[in-house]
Amino acid sequence: MGEIQVVPPALDRLVRSFSSLPGIGTKTATRLALTILRKPAADAREMAAALSELHGSIRLCSHCMAFSETDPCSVCGDPRRDGSLVCVVEQPADLMAIEKTDHYRGHYHILHGVLSPVAGIGPEELKIKELVARLKSGTISEVLIATSSTVPGEATASYLIDTLGRFQVKLSRLACGIPMGMDIKYADQHTLARAIDSRFNAS
Amino acid sequence: MGEIQVVPPALDRLVRSFSSLPGIGTKTATRLALTILRKPAADAREMAAALSELHGSIRLCSHCMAFSETDPCSVCGDPRRDGSLVCVVEQPADLMAIEKTDHYRGHYHILHGVLSPVAGIGPEELKIKELVARLKSGTISEVLIATSSTVPGEATASYLIDTLGRFQVKLSRLACGIPMGMDIKYADQHTLARAIDSRFNAS
Repeated sequence: MGEIQVVPPALDRLVRSFSSLPGIGTKTATRLALTILRKPAADAREMAAALSELHGSIRLCSHCMAFSETDPCSVCGDPRRDGSLVCVVEQPADLMAIEKTDHYRGHYHILHGVLSPVAGIGPEELKIKELVARLKSGTISEVLIATSSTVPGEATASYLIDTLGRFQVKLSRLACGIPMGMDIKYADQHTLARAIDSRFNAS
Repeated sequence: MGEIQVVPPALDRLVRSFSSLPGIGTKTATRLALTILRKPAADAREMAAALSELHGSIRLCSHCMAFSETDPCSVCGDPRRDGSLVCVVEQPADLMAIEKTDHYRGHYHILHGVLSPVAGIGPEELKIKELVARLKSGTISEVLIATSSTVPGEATASYLIDTLGRFQVKLSRLACGIPMGMDIKYADQHTLARAIDSRFNAS
């Protein structure tokens, strides 16, 4: 018989649509679709409306390249924030994580990816020329490079340090070390090595 | 600042819609919504269309209570299947799992839940009276009760055995024991106890 025959085509269509998302396999997609089917039709319509309107209402902020319904976005347009400091992140989710800390009051720049020669992603595929244009405007004094401490993240950071070195701006990076609350014996050796190299004077 | 300000309302709406699904928290919902935003708008429209059409095209098969676009569904309407054998399952996903085995050629009956006094789910909330009506028709000779071997699943099975006992039908249950390919030393004691009690003659 196989599974195809017992899954109604309308359900199967939604399952295939969901399973095109990262981390969602056929089993999870089926579970989600069946849950939606059991909920009121109004819930499904609400989700459908949110999906339909998504691309129409959201554009990129012309300053920081964040997804936003306004241009400038709420961060770039906020006069209380420090526009001379720009934090460069890989993705919008990184911006959200940094905002959650409530420890950053500058602006952002979203690269929308990392350098990955294997995946064919070079500097032109990232929003680097837009960052260079912002630096040329002369209002920025510090660029905090907050790419991930992964191999592609470090490669992207190195590229940015090379490329931005010709501007009269301070280039900084996020500190690397032992996560808060972590027992040192459980830290991996690379993190521990980095924490030792970056040790600070506590006296 | 908080997260709210940096998430555009249109994105936030989709994130909240996704995070109403089981097993999808705000982080996963955000990741999914951002993925959809990065994909072409046509993909989002396709998913929206699948969601909008879902409830309109799918009803319950009046025989087995499975989700289907037709009534009878493809299983109940298939003349090659044995209508005298009915397998009772909790949910449509269980039916799909059994169909995948390619070892069952009878019909089904979907309860759409399990008895759960704590959650206020009694026999009236399940499709039990529809099952009783099918048995009254007299064409069914065996009911295979395939509820899960969980506490609510077992309670539901007991209730069904009580309720269906007055009909002239054979009541059977799925065998319980060691999963295929499992090392006995890793089996939990309850499964192992059940496997010993249900041992069969191998000579």
